[in-house]
Amino acid sequence: MGAIWDRLASSQVIDLAQPLHRGMPVSPNHPAFQLALMRRHGDMVRPDGGSAANEIIVTGGHVGTHIDALAHVSQDGLLHGGVKPDSIQSNLGFSELGIETVEPIVCRGVILDIAALHGVDALEGGYEVSVEDLEKSAGRQRVEVMVGDAVLIRTGWSRHWNNPNAFIGTDTGTPGPGEAAARWLSEHRVRLTGAETIAFELIPPAQGHAVLPAHRILLVEAGIHIIEVMDLSRLAASDVSEFIFVATPLKLVGATGSPIRPIALIDA
Amino acid sequence: MGAIWDRLASSQVIDLAQPLHRGMPVSPNHPAFQLALMRRHGDMVRPDGGSAANEIIVTGGHVGTHIDALAHVSQDGLLHGGVKPDSIQSNLGFSELGIETVEPIVCRGVILDIAALHGVDALEGGYEVSVEDLEKSAGRQRVEVMVGDAVLIRTGWSRHWNNPNAFIGTDTGTPGPGEAAARWLSEHRVRLTGAETIAFELIPPAQGHAVLPAHRILLVEAGIHIIEVMDLSRLAASDVSEFIFVATPLKLVGATGSPIRPIALIDA
Amino acid sequence: MGAIWDRLASSQVIDLAQPLHRGMPVSPNHPAFQLALMRRHGDMVRPDGGSAANEIIVTGGHVGTHIDALAHVSQDGLLHGGVKPDSIQSNLGFSELGIETVEPIVCRGVILDIAALHGVDALEGGYEVSVEDLEKSAGRQRVEVMVGDAVLIRTGWSRHWNNPNAFIGTDTGTPGPGEAAARWLSEHRVRLTGAETIAFELIPPAQGHAVLPAHRILLVEAGIHIIEVMDLSRLAASDVSEFIFVATPLKLVGATGSPIRPIALIDA
Amino acid sequence: MGAIWDRLASSQVIDLAQPLHRGMPVSPNHPAFQLALMRRHGDMVRPDGGSAANEIIVTGGHVGTHIDALAHVSQDGLLHGGVKPDSIQSNLGFSELGIETVEPIVCRGVILDIAALHGVDALEGGYEVSVEDLEKSAGRQRVEVMVGDAVLIRTGWSRHWNNPNAFIGTDTGTPGPGEAAARWLSEHRVRLTGAETIAFELIPPAQGHAVLPAHRILLVEAGIHIIEVMDLSRLAASDVSEFIFVATPLKLVGATGSPIRPIALIDA
Repeated sequence: MGAIWDRLASSQVIDLAQPLHRGMPVSPNHPAFQLALMRRHGDMVRPDGGSAANEIIVTGGHVGTHIDALAHVSQDGLLHGGVKPDSIQSNLGFSELGIETVEPIVCRGVILDIAALHGVDALEGGYEVSVEDLEKSAGRQRVEVMVGDAVLIRTGWSRHWNNPNAFIGTDTGTPGPGEAAARWLSEHRVRLTGAETIAFELIPPAQGHAVLPAHRILLVEAGIHIIEVMDLSRLAASDVSEFIFVATPLKLVGATGSPIRPIALIDA
Repeated sequence: MGAIWDRLASSQVIDLAQPLHRGMPVSPNHPAFQLALMRRHGDMVRPDGGSAANEIIVTGGHVGTHIDALAHVSQDGLLHGGVKPDSIQSNLGFSELGIETVEPIVCRGVILDIAALHGVDALEGGYEVSVEDLEKSAGRQRVEVMVGDAVLIRTGWSRHWNNPNAFIGTDTGTPGPGEAAARWLSEHRVRLTGAETIAFELIPPAQGHAVLPAHRILLVEAGIHIIEVMDLSRLAASDVSEFIFVATPLKLVGATGSPIRPIALIDA
Repeated sequence: MGAIWDRLASSQVIDLAQPLHRGMPVSPNHPAFQLALMRRHGDMVRPDGGSAANEIIVTGGHVGTHIDALAHVSQDGLLHGGVKPDSIQSNLGFSELGIETVEPIVCRGVILDIAALHGVDALEGGYEVSVEDLEKSAGRQRVEVMVGDAVLIRTGWSRHWNNPNAFIGTDTGTPGPGEAAARWLSEHRVRLTGAETIAFELIPPAQGHAVLPAHRILLVEAGIHIIEVMDLSRLAASDVSEFIFVATPLKLVGATGSPIRPIALIDA
Repeated sequence: MGAIWDRLASSQVIDLAQPLHRGMPVSPNHPAFQLALMRRHGDMVRPDGGSAANEIIVTGGHVGTHIDALAHVSQDGLLHGGVKPDSIQSNLGFSELGIETVEPIVCRGVILDIAALHGVDALEGGYEVSVEDLEKSAGRQRVEVMVGDAVLIRTGWSRHWNNPNAFIGTDTGTPGPGEAAARWLSEHRVRLTGAETIAFELIPPAQGHAVLPAHRILLVEAGIHIIEVMDLSRLAASDVSEFIFVATPLKLVGATGSPIRPIALIDA
């Protein structure tokens, strides 16, 4: 194990997750994040002077930085692979295509920095990331998207994280890949793709999530997982375009998604 | 990135987490795990025929496979580093020593298989893992515990996972490191240590968690994180003693612990 | 308002609810009750020296003393009135027959004390409350069951409240009205009926809730609400057989039940 | 029981609660209300063709129409009666002054309709209900506030219920009793007082809940419970000024408040 370990030991770990706290941006379709200490130190002291604190957490599979299971989205009454939802959804969640069926992810990662391509801190709400954007940024960064990659698309939107209304973008919309860009990712047979916004997609101003074509193309048609609410600012600042990508979804049996804390490993 | 990636690409990923589902074993000190689908496919169909499902989750920082933050345990009124809990615990959780301060973990991992050392599927409840056990199993497996390692101690207890009463071990107790073994780990200055039981510690039959000396020594005195409720059966079956260990705690701001899905990367 | 008020003012209010706390008996079909203080006094002190504490609660519509909505149970694919569940159940709960459609209940109440009839503190698990029991206890107490009444059936089971395993009665079963007694209540066109156990019904030892005929007869066929987990000990001790019964279900939109705190008003 | 029952039987029950549903107005200090069906009909069908649906609920003691326990607010480090919070607050909630110590409430009720006094549908945000308002409305309605009453103060604010931003009134403030009116209620030794807004108090525009003098005077100094988020529109429309008031707080052990569904009983 020596050689690989020496390399990993000298690699730098870059955190790609947003913090989870009460009041953070959450889509109104999902439960607001709650965390409260149940026990605090001093509440119950053991005979030997020890004391423990703990918490209760209310959350959802699509709250904070998270990954979508294939059970999440259906189109015209069918999930990925033509599975009918009614045959697999119940009080136990989904008996197929749930997030617990997703193996831990360790693969090559590529970031395509569309904000940097356009020389802006963050793209505007409603901006459609196009195929040209994807290809030009790959060219600019001298990186190639390959089969099985994790492709992270930076719009700079994570800068709005501390302003929940701006981050959710009800009025402004959010920037993201349109139908053509989603098709491009699908044709490149990537393993997964991720972005910083709450819905990954291009959302036009003031229209809400009326249609979600990228979810249809990626999750339903191609079986490609989507990661949302990433913080790509540190990775972008590292000036690295390819890296080892690691994400380990919680084994939430039957769930349609899971909070994760993905990381990028880069040469230090 | 070529060389390291080639090696990683050919490595095998071993999952070290238990699944999370309603009815799974949870300590009565922590909230029972709950997951319910909020929306199912068909509840709300968008104009284009798309539909999404999602869930609500109730859990705790110490539910399922999880890692303890240093905020979790205090001794004689002090946390690790002599911090007074009242100065940092509030409705916002802990302003220091919370789980969000734990960087993603990528380090060398070592498994010490005490069950295999004794030639049993699982050690008995109440069995104390001794320093001799740790050293003999390291010798038997020809592996050395080094500074900064993740040291996983296998008792075989995860075989009781599907029987919550047996797993929690209220009557039988659970096997685990005693005070001396915890001291040994501390003196080896490991980065973290993990086990399969709900409390890591040796719990004598029918005594409950009256005292938790390993938590005191590791968390409070040494600042060494503890992982509980691991499933080490697949790793043990792989016959590998050292590996790359990866665990990425969720950034639950102010929390005393986090569910995780740790993995071991081994040469395929 | 004078006359009625003078009478009410001199009436005695008898509490018919069990307390709600972590660790209390809850059916495994329902979420365990959780309550944790979010803010404690001192966490956030306002400029004027004021401070507030509050809590987060996780519960269910059938946790603690509660009332069943007609949406709760179906038989052969149909709810009360022949309504098909799929047409009214969604992410919004039930669009018909939900607990919010139940008006506040103020009606005549009658207690039938079957435990007293048999001269025991509590009937045995698995004991079937028969039509003869209902009629004999009414005769013994010189009270008549009339159309529109709230009929409370005392088995003495609430004495097991502080022992969750005994209260749930997995091994012993629980006493309760059998099919014939449920039919009798239905024929008397009562407004609702209540009992002390977790499922109202006769549950035979070690058989679980395999079939629930009283729920079918009362909820589905007759549209009669059922209250479970009452504490009838104080009412029984008052030696009163008829009273004013008041229960006000929370307006949980679309829910299948609600926690309540029912009361009996009796002449002081 | 005949006479009183005949009167009650002919009385009209007026519901004073708002409905509870996802997305309803909740103060950001409290957990957002969540309700999701866990089981739907058809998920698990028993051998006899029966099926049940149920839900999981996340809420708080101060969510929806609710009543404040005396444990809710402290002033200068002391609760009502000079109790020090640290001696009674823990992981178990409050060992004194919790909502479970509040007996079911059956008392004379009086509504003072300040909106009607001023001839408006609803008073403006930031409007201070004065002592003169209370006295003039009592005079106009020919009703007297007496010791032990439940005094409900109508501002018309419940008309904003379906517009959460307007109801919470972050920008506009909310109308309510000022310090003098709270003192007046306290001097009249009422049993409790209630209103339609989320905080009962006069909240000036854009200032948030910086200080809450009515809570201090009523809860801390006088031990008078406060009910918030009532819907007084139906009661106001009934043109009745005095009534029998009934409210039964859930016995949430150690909690600082409870959701309730209060009612008014009036002559039909």
